[in-house]
This record gives sequence, structure tokens and C-alpha cells, in this order.
Amino acid sequence: MAFKTDIEIAREAKKQPIQQIGDKLGIPTEHLLPYGHDKAKVSQDFIRSLEGRPDGKLILVTAINPTPAGEGKTTTTVGLGDGLNRIGKKAVICIREASLGPNFGMKGGAAGGGYAQVVPMEEMNLHFTGDFHAITSAHNLLSAMIDNHIYWGNELQIDERRVSWRRVMDMNDRALRDIVVSLGGVSNGFPRQTGFDITVASEVMAILCLAKDLEDLQKRLGDIVVAYRRDKSPIYCRDIKADGAMTVLLKDAMQPNLVQTLENNPAFVHGGPFANIAHGCNSVIATKTALKLGEYVVTEAGFGADLGAEKFFDIKCRKAGLKPAAAVIVATVRAMKMNGGVAKADLGAENVEAVKKGCPNLGRHIANVKSFGVPVVVAINHFYSDTDAEVAAVKAYVAEQGAEAILCKHWANGSAGIEDLANKVVELAEGGSANFAPLYPDDMPLFQKIETVAKRIYHADEVLADKSIRDQLKTWEDAGYGHLPVCMAKTQYSFTTDPNRRGAPTGHSVPVREVRLSAGAGFIVVICGEIMTMPGLPKTPAAEVIRINDEGNVEGLF
Amino acid sequence: MAFKTDIEIAREAKKQPIQQIGDKLGIPTEHLLPYGHDKAKVSQDFIRSLEGRPDGKLILVTAINPTPAGEGKTTTTVGLGDGLNRIGKKAVICIREASLGPNFGMKGGAAGGGYAQVVPMEEMNLHFTGDFHAITSAHNLLSAMIDNHIYWGNELQIDERRVSWRRVMDMNDRALRDIVVSLGGVSNGFPRQTGFDITVASEVMAILCLAKDLEDLQKRLGDIVVAYRRDKSPIYCRDIKADGAMTVLLKDAMQPNLVQTLENNPAFVHGGPFANIAHGCNSVIATKTALKLGEYVVTEAGFGADLGAEKFFDIKCRKAGLKPAAAVIVATVRAMKMNGGVAKADLGAENVEAVKKGCPNLGRHIANVKSFGVPVVVAINHFYSDTDAEVAAVKAYVAEQGAEAILCKHWANGSAGIEDLANKVVELAEGGSANFAPLYPDDMPLFQKIETVAKRIYHADEVLADKSIRDQLKTWEDAGYGHLPVCMAKTQYSFTTDPNRRGAPTGHSVPVREVRLSAGAGFIVVICGEIMTMPGLPKTPAAEVIRINDEGNVEGLF
Repeated sequence: MAFKTDIEIAREAKKQPIQQIGDKLGIPTEHLLPYGHDKAKVSQDFIRSLEGRPDGKLILVTAINPTPAGEGKTTTTVGLGDGLNRIGKKAVICIREASLGPNFGMKGGAAGGGYAQVVPMEEMNLHFTGDFHAITSAHNLLSAMIDNHIYWGNELQIDERRVSWRRVMDMNDRALRDIVVSLGGVSNGFPRQTGFDITVASEVMAILCLAKDLEDLQKRLGDIVVAYRRDKSPIYCRDIKADGAMTVLLKDAMQPNLVQTLENNPAFVHGGPFANIAHGCNSVIATKTALKLGEYVVTEAGFGADLGAEKFFDIKCRKAGLKPAAAVIVATVRAMKMNGGVAKADLGAENVEAVKKGCPNLGRHIANVKSFGVPVVVAINHFYSDTDAEVAAVKAYVAEQGAEAILCKHWANGSAGIEDLANKVVELAEGGSANFAPLYPDDMPLFQKIETVAKRIYHADEVLADKSIRDQLKTWEDAGYGHLPVCMAKTQYSFTTDPNRRGAPTGHSVPVREVRLSAGAGFIVVICGEIMTMPGLPKTPAAEVIRINDEGNVEGLF
Repeated sequence: MAFKTDIEIAREAKKQPIQQIGDKLGIPTEHLLPYGHDKAKVSQDFIRSLEGRPDGKLILVTAINPTPAGEGKTTTTVGLGDGLNRIGKKAVICIREASLGPNFGMKGGAAGGGYAQVVPMEEMNLHFTGDFHAITSAHNLLSAMIDNHIYWGNELQIDERRVSWRRVMDMNDRALRDIVVSLGGVSNGFPRQTGFDITVASEVMAILCLAKDLEDLQKRLGDIVVAYRRDKSPIYCRDIKADGAMTVLLKDAMQPNLVQTLENNPAFVHGGPFANIAHGCNSVIATKTALKLGEYVVTEAGFGADLGAEKFFDIKCRKAGLKPAAAVIVATVRAMKMNGGVAKADLGAENVEAVKKGCPNLGRHIANVKSFGVPVVVAINHFYSDTDAEVAAVKAYVAEQGAEAILCKHWANGSAGIEDLANKVVELAEGGSANFAPLYPDDMPLFQKIETVAKRIYHADEVLADKSIRDQLKTWEDAGYGHLPVCMAKTQYSFTTDPNRRGAPTGHSVPVREVRLSAGAGFIVVICGEIMTMPGLPKTPAAEVIRINDEGNVEGLF
């Protein structure tokens, strides 16, 4: 079969002028700030004016543990948004922005796929509206001001060995992971070892995605711990006096970006924090704005439900006071087969037994999400090689778990292919069965929070942590950070910390290697495995073939 | 007297929607890509469609050597544009974009001043339309790909000690001037010493400002010399295969930005190369587009005429085939007094003798500019403390030099204050006396080009250069770069290389410390003194007081 590629479909889109999309949401011209003819930002004044309006219903799209077969979480988020609009509900989609740097390594990510995409795809994979550049600038201004403070006398008595604030760049550049700065003599400062992370890994990114307005943004920026003194007392961004200027740099980036689906339905594409060392969700301000403007808001969370949905519930919903009305767990027959032990090369052949064998991974995610008090439906994202028997096997398994699995063909057919799911989501959301509560209370001790996630979500037997880590958590509790949620950084490929253990394993341990305080974002990062915060480029980077072709189109990016 | 500040005036501006400004230039809606309601980019397709149209007349605004008293070159550029529109000429202004980083050190630069400004001032001093961020990304993508190439086997045999391509950031960050990268073990690459420059100092910036279209941009990017082998043979950006992806990153940045003056006249604000290690002019594509759309185009060049006008003529006009019709040299009574030996604190008191004593600096610039075959008028940018006798002294001196000096009050009165200058410019431009030619022919040997500028423009006796420098120039001539113009990097404060020698000194020598090849931009940089390519922040950076105030306005940036 010959399919059109995502970018071919995207280029054929009949886009409406962005003001027309804004009109559907009732955003007046003066409050919709265009970026070209197909992208816009919504003004802070308009967002403020929405206060007091009732909220629409919030639908989370999450997934099984990702496999190389792909599950199509963003595609289903977009498709469901279109589907809800098709059945007469005013629905708004909320997804994350793409990081620029990785696109030059591997091929860039589409925003959805097939006939369930948001456009303009090219711009969204390049500079878009400049939000990530603003975050890079704000982050690095603080870095420059820290070294500048030390240079001019170090009144705050920063211990140069304990500057935890690094620099960032939206680029895959392994050479910058570990560097020494301020060489070259007196006029360049005091040499010290530091490094760069990729911009999405910046705490500024996480803060922007959790801040409720500019005032809250500035407060959170001020709260960032940037360094310590020799007596280990913390030094805050506020002490460096960078929080005001950083807020100014971020004022436009804080405004949600409006684009459209192929079917001309509104989508807010805003924020994109790293889904391991941060919480990996669309911004709170975009989600909350969408809730004021739509009857339904469909949003996604990073990775599988063990990481993404857990952090969506325990960090984003807890902190922003959001109450999800239903959740969709995306699965594919192919991914079930891989969980059942089939190699990628053999996915084309029917194998009902393997599908059945892989289903427990899905089953555990269903139970986990339900445990937050949120009703669940499973979306089987259809792939053309799926057989009826395989689909039936997934449906039967899900029914046994007390949920329903619905076959969705939005990739091939757009909203027409996902009506059943849309109807089911409405039934769940309007049924009133949702009774959301986070997994653990704020006042639970930090280590116990980690244990709760590990045991109840990962189904581990125990958490392993050195005394130094337990002591560190205790120190933070004493310093007043005990009420923060934990942000788990673990492989997305497994419920365990071993990326190769598929399915629904039990009896494992969760080793905690390191804990980090993100005082501005408002969580404790718990690192259970290798976390790479600055990727490298592959041997043959995608950048080598990216170019503008003779038709003036970008080639090689997708 | 109590004056309104520039930002107060800018905030009171009665801006027209940017499409209305575009309408004045005949730019159709689909070809004007808005960024908010008051900024836009002009599409490449529209620019291509202008080919074959006749050109308007090009007017250069340049100045005497800058003093701490200020001369108001951009203010006069904007004022003259408004003045020409006032007297019925369709005039377009072409100025440079501001660099973000330095605004957090000292207070940000306005785009003009008083009642001769372009707006929106805030955005122009922050991210504007993201051009500089795109340049940063394109530059650093190349950097990452070079280290990545070495990491994966170094097929091109790059000598790690001879990587001349550094990284850039739009930030004043002295700690990044001199760094060691790739520490931390095998997976981070091969440790080597390198550093960051500020983005405006990037050769990518100079290239963007000289490229005539996207195709030319990609060719020039490919031409960049990024490193050398052990046998000293050069390695080009093209060998790293980064030129295509860099062009993709720069495709929007190549489109000129349209904004408006306080009087709602069109202004292209585009490009902003470092005026010492590059040529310091508005982009060729913006200037050429403006020439197709207006009867008059008023543009500026960086620093005083010895540096700015010389490079405007010998680099920009030579390479782009531009023929300026007239030049305005901006002077102030206060700057004449400083050139005449008065300290800044004493500038308020009338001192006709000091004015007379300072005038030879102006006189030499007049003669220099005329030597390019371009007719000259002097604009005395009026300051409220100037006395009639002082103004008269300048006028009399200029008349002796065979030119006219016209008192201009655009700062206080907008276009109404600069009608006389506008009329005089029209008289000169339409008089047909211009007969522009660059100072030296392409085929003159490189060292002789340096001598020509030093002797004929700086009025030096000789150029001092080590054998190694002369040998280097010879090597480049042998490699086919002998036809390039020279880009002089010298203090802007004096005709000499000593910033303290004001007036019109003679008998000095010009020592050349270093020469650099910018093969993509297409010039040889000749460094005659300290050139700082990464500034630092002052002890109390402006950033410390920059914030969003209770009215939602940015405070402390201006």
C-alpha cells in the first residue's frame, strides 16, 4: 500500500486564517496575536478576563509503555479532539511543543500523524513562536549573572564548587555536557567546572509549564536554588536579582500558542518540559485557558501512564487544581505483540497469542489510572496490518479488566474514524463517575511518597536508597520542602528501572541514585537510572540532508 | 525642563495595524506575515516578484566619531525618513536590529529617540521576530556538527587544535569567552579549548546581512572556513554538511521585518552585524527590497564615517551593487565641543571656541565621504542647550568645506523639525552629482587595500604589520581570496587606533595585530587593536532592576 507521508498530508491542509480559529473560541482580534497567518498567541489580558467562567471537562490521553512499534499518543489526542468536535462538542486540544535540537539528530517529530495532525507542522518543528528560545535566554541570563556576581566580589559568598545552575542550549551537543568556563585569565572570572543541558531540561521550562500567571512565574523563578555557600545554605535566583528580567524575557512565551488541526479545530501547543526530570505536560496556563473556552479539553502526558499519567495527576493536576473527567489509554496491537515477545521485524504477521501475552502491560495501566479515581477507556490505534482476531483479543482482555477498548481509525480517516471513542469519552465524562484524587497527600514524608509511587504504580517490592539520599530528603523536609510532590525520573520502557523488562513485572526493586530539588518548579526529582540531560548527535545527523528544495519546501526534516 | 523619556513617547504612539503600513508599500496581506499586530515579515515570494522594478534613491546616514555626548545617528535616520515622507516623498527607513544580551548589562537602546523613533520599542529590544535566536541556532548547529564529526571518527581529519568555529550566545557572559569542552570521558568527545562569542559577532550574522537570497545564503554558509587539517588545508562548512540545515533555520530570519515610525511611516529593521569584526549595516535584502518599494531609502551604518561609511561603501555597496545618491553626516554641537577638549560635565555652557576647535573631525569625515563620489550634507542634531552662536560656528565651518550644515529638530518636533534637511537631501539626490565608486578596486593586493584605507580615510602615515601577517594575506591571495574587500576593526572613537585621540590627527601609524578570513561573508577582517567579541556584565547589571511593573509594562529596560 502506498500512503502519503505526514508532511505530504500536512502540506495539503486547507488551513483557515488563525483569526477564524480564534473566532471559534471567541477570542477577539486584539487579543489574538498572530505569528504569520496560521499561528497566534492569546493575550494575558484575555486570559485574565476568563476568570469566573465555568470549566469544560478535562480528558487525559496516556498510553502503555512505549515500544519501538509506536503507540500514537499525540495522534490520538488530536484525533479525539477532532472526533469530539465532529459529534457536536466544542473541544480544544492541548499538546506540547517540540524541541528544536533533536530534530537535527533524528528526523523531526510530527504533531500527530496521518489525518490526525496539527499544522503548520514545519514551523512547529523549527522555531515556532520562539518560546523555547525565550526559555534559553532566561535560563542563561541567570547563569551569566551568577558568574558575574562571583566576578565582582561574590558578596553572597557563593561556593564556586557548588553552583548547581548550569547553562542550556536547544541543541544536541555532547561536547557541552561537561566543560570548564572562565579560563583565559583574570578578566574572564574564576575557572570552574559546569556544563550545558538541552533547553527542555531547564527548570525554567518546568516552571513556565506550571505557573498560573506572570506573577506566579516570577515568584517561582525567584525560588530557584542556584548554588550553595560553603556552609551549604542555599542561594536563590532572587538573591541574584535575576527573577524580574527573566520574567520579562518570558512574558510572550507565557502566552499559549493557538494552531489548528487538519480539520480546522483549535489546538493549544504550549510548553514541553522533559518528561523525566520534569513532569512532561502541556502548560497549566494553556490547559486552564482551554478549559474556559471549550466544553472538552483533550490533553496528553509524556511517555507511558506509569510516568506520564502519574506525574500529570500528582504534579500538574494537584498543583493546578485540575480534576480530570476521564482518561484514554492508547495501545496498539503491534505494541501488545512486542510486549508479548515479538521482534519488530515480525510484527507484520498475525499472532493472537503474542497479543494476549502482551496485554497485562495494558491491564496494569488501566488499574493504575483507575486508582486515581478517573474512569478509563482504551483506544486501539489501528494499524493497517492489524487482524480482526488480534483486535478482538485486545477488546476481550480489556473487557475482563472492567473497561472498554475501542478501535480507532483516525490516522487513516480523521474524525470519522474516531467517533465511537469520542462518544464513549462523553459518556464517561458526563456519567459523573470521576472522583479524582492524587496518589498521596502533600504531608506524607518524601521518602514515603517515593515508596508509594514505586509500590502502587510500578508494583515494586521496595525502594533502595543510600543513607545520603535519605538524609538529603530529610534536610529538605526540615527546610520546608516536605510538602512537594516527587517527580520520578525512570526509564519509560518498563514499569521497572530496566528498560528491557516489558509486560507487567512484579517483585522488582527501585534503586534511587540521586535526588534533586526543583524549588521553583515545586517538586523533588527522584532519579532511578541514567538520565541524559544533553543528548548527542548520531553518526549521520538528520541535519546533513535537511535543506530547502527547489520548490522552496523544507526537505529532510520529517 | 522636563522631557518625556523615549519609552514614554513610544508608549503613547498611535500605531497603525501593520497591514496598513504594508498597504502603503503595496504589500498584499498574504505576503505580509504578522508578528503580533505591529510587526511583520515580508515574504520571499513577494521580494522575488519585485525584480525588474526601478530602484529608489539610497541615502546613507553616517556620523562623526562618537563621543560620550552622543550624536543621534539612528534618531536622524528615522527623522529624515519621516521628513522625506512629510515633504511628499515615499521614503522607507532601513535600520539594524538590536542585540538582546547587552540590554541586560547597560540600559537598552531605543530605536531612535524623542519624536523620531520606530516602534514597538520594547519588542525590538527583546526577542523581536526571533532573527537573532535563529542565527544563534544556525551557528551552534554547525559547532555541534563539527565536534560530532570528530567524535564519530573524524573522517575529514580535522586538527582539533585548529577548529576556528566557536559557539555563540546572545548574552554578555564573560565566563564563556574561553572554555574547555568535551570533558567527562569518552562519551563526551575529545577535550579541546574553544569559547563563545556574542551572536552579533557571528559570521552567520554577517552572511545573513550580505546574502541576496536563500540560495546565496546557503552558498555563503557553505563557504565558511570552520577548521584546518594538520597540513593547514581548510575545512569548510560544506564539508560538514551543515549548510542546508542552517539555511532552513534561517529561512524566516532572511525575511525583512517591517515596523513603523511614530508618524506611521514604514521602517525595515533587519540584521545587525557587529560593526567592527563585520560591516555593521542593515541587511542587503532589506535595503534592496526597500529600494524597490520607496522613492527614497534612508539607511545607517555603524560607528563614525571612518569605520561605518567606509565599510558601507567598500563592502555592502560594492558587493550588492548599490549606488548611494547622497550621504548625511550627523554631528552635534556637544560632540564638537568634546572633540574640542571640553569635558562631559562642562558641555552645558556655551563655548564657541571649543566648537570651532572640534570641527576638523567633522571636516575630515566630509572630505572622506565625498572621496567616494557621494554628495554630503551635515545634519546638526539639535540639543536644547545649544546656543545660536555655537550652531552658527558649525555652519560656517561646514560651508568652508564646500558643504552645508542644517539644524535639525526632529528629536523634539518629529518630521516638522527636519524638513530643511529632507529638502536638501532631495536636492542633492536629484541633482545627479553622485558618482559613487568604492575606494579601491577588487584586484588590488590585500595589504595595499589596508594601506589605502589607513592612508586615505584615517590619514595615517603607515601600516605596521609583522611578516606573519603579510604572509597570511599572501597565502589567502594564493588561495583565491585576494579579490575580497577588507573589513577594518578599529576603535570607533578616533581616526587613529588610540581611542583618546580626538579631532583630526595625522602622522600616526596603524598597527595590524591580526587578520581573519570570513570566507562566507566575503571579507578579510583586519584587527587593529583589542576587539572584544564577548562582552561582560557590569557590577550592577541593568537586569537587576528590569521587571514587569503593576501596570504590566516592562520597567528598567530603557
